[in-house]
Amino acid sequence: MSGSIGRVADKSDPVYKADDTPFDVFSRTCPSRPVLEHVTGRWGSLVLAALQNGPVRFNDLRRRVDGVSQKVLAQTLHALERDGFVNRHQLSVFPLRVEYTLTPPGQDVAAKLLELITQVEASMDSVLAFRQDYDSNAAAGHTARA
Amino acid sequence: MSGSIGRVADKSDPVYKADDTPFDVFSRTCPSRPVLEHVTGRWGSLVLAALQNGPVRFNDLRRRVDGVSQKVLAQTLHALERDGFVNRHQLSVFPLRVEYTLTPPGQDVAAKLLELITQVEASMDSVLAFRQDYDSNAAAGHTARA
Repeated sequence: MSGSIGRVADKSDPVYKADDTPFDVFSRTCPSRPVLEHVTGRWGSLVLAALQNGPVRFNDLRRRVDGVSQKVLAQTLHALERDGFVNRHQLSVFPLRVEYTLTPPGQDVAAKLLELITQVEASMDSVLAFRQDYDSNAAAGHTARA
Repeated sequence: MSGSIGRVADKSDPVYKADDTPFDVFSRTCPSRPVLEHVTGRWGSLVLAALQNGPVRFNDLRRRVDGVSQKVLAQTLHALERDGFVNRHQLSVFPLRVEYTLTPPGQDVAAKLLELITQVEASMDSVLAFRQDYDSNAAAGHTARA
C-alpha cells in the first residue's frame, strides 16, 4: 500500500475536482489532502489567520489563538513551516526571540481562510436560530415516540 | 465554567477579529469556533465541497469523499445538518433513499471553502518543492551535528 502514498490524482479523475490542477483533495492518496488538513485543522486555521497582519512572536500567538497549548502550537507551526506557508525567524537578540510570518503562499491561503472565517461568523445568527429549532423538533419527536 | 460556554465574544475584543460581527473564532468560548471546526474539519470540508453541485445520496457521497467511514460520514452530516448548512431529504420511494443538499447558508460557506481548496491545490507544487528543501536542510543539519 505504501507505493500509493503520494500518488497524484489523475487529470481524468471524476468531475468533482475543485480545479484543473493535477492535485485533488478528494483523493485520499493525493498529497494535497494532508496540506488541506494543516491549513484547516482546529489550530492551523486560527494560526494562519492570526498571522495575517504581520510578524507575531510565539507567546503572542499563543495568547491570540485562545486555548492552544504550547506543544500543539509548536507542532502546528512546524507543519505549516514545512509546507512553506509560515516562516520562522530567530532574532539575534537576548533573550532569545522567535517571530513567525506568512510566506507569499501562506498569505494566499490565509486570505481565503479569512474569507471563510468571516463567512462562518456572519452565518452564526442563522446557525444558532436553526439549531434551536432543530433541537426542539428532535426533542418533540422524542417525546412523541416515548 | 459551564456558565461561560456559549459566551459571545465582546465587540471590544482585540483587533484580530476577522470582521465586525459579535462572533469571534479566536475566542475559545465563542460558539462560532465549533461551527468553524465542523466546516473545516477533516471530513466536513470535503463533504460541503462535494455537495456543491446539487443533491447527493449518502452512498455516492461516501464514494466521493474517498476514505471516510460510514459512521464518520453520518456524524459529519448530522453536525452540518444541525448547523443548518446541509439539508437531509428522505425520498418516499422504495428502497429507502436519502439525499443531501446544501442550504443557502451552506452554499455560502461551501463557496468560500471551494476557493480555499482551489488555493491549496494550486499551492501544491510550491509546497512539495519547499518540503524537499526543508527536509534536506534538516537532514544536513542533523548530519553536521552528529
